[in-house]
Amino acid sequence: MTTQSVLFLSFLAASVAFADDAADIRKVLATQQDLWNSGDVKGFTAYYTEDTNFVSTQVMRGQQQVLERYLRRYPNRDAMGKLGFDELEVTKLGKDFASVIGRWKLDRSEAAGGNVGGYFTLLFKRTKQGWKIILDHTS
Amino acid sequence: MTTQSVLFLSFLAASVAFADDAADIRKVLATQQDLWNSGDVKGFTAYYTEDTNFVSTQVMRGQQQVLERYLRRYPNRDAMGKLGFDELEVTKLGKDFASVIGRWKLDRSEAAGGNVGGYFTLLFKRTKQGWKIILDHTS
Repeated sequence: MTTQSVLFLSFLAASVAFADDAADIRKVLATQQDLWNSGDVKGFTAYYTEDTNFVSTQVMRGQQQVLERYLRRYPNRDAMGKLGFDELEVTKLGKDFASVIGRWKLDRSEAAGGNVGGYFTLLFKRTKQGWKIILDHTS
Repeated sequence: MTTQSVLFLSFLAASVAFADDAADIRKVLATQQDLWNSGDVKGFTAYYTEDTNFVSTQVMRGQQQVLERYLRRYPNRDAMGKLGFDELEVTKLGKDFASVIGRWKLDRSEAAGGNVGGYFTLLFKRTKQGWKIILDHTS
């Protein structure tokens, strides 16, 4: 093979790998959306880790703290509403990290607090158990 | 050299490199703080890039948009107040990226809007011009 074709194939392989990673990360988010909308808050937070930083009006650390915050803020299916993610932008950061910017919204009845939403930034890390969220800034 | 000493030296070299990177990133933030407090909003935004995503209640892209937002929100030295960064946590993400979580606050007179503050998440990328902010989520 010529140097050019080796370079081209390397480029192609890297592009395919990136497309796969981005697709895998989007799949995690789609799964989280489904878990939330089936009432499974614990399953939703299974994509966080023991060390995940969750940043909003304060900083929390670890899956357990994030889970407890969600259970406090969204104590029942009405309060949880219907979650939707939108405007997702996945950016690879080297081989094993990626950032995602996106919009979240909860469709809820007025009685349950009404619609809410905002933007989030996520940092994903490749682990042996798949892509995990190591940082979540939600506002 | 034994395998152990090679491994140890590699580990040491990696640790030193990380310490340097983290120190360089902290230096950028200290410089930004000084620039803001000397009234140089444009200098402050020189650490953003053409592609930087700035996430708050909306998503903006690029140094110019971020600069215009700052000039709108903080039109004079009184509105700019005195900026302080605190509780900084720098995490390397592979060789060329890093995240920073931190707290920001503006000390201002009541007439100028009073004190404000919150948390931010930054993503830094190593470039030929030094570490640059490619994502800023401020809330």
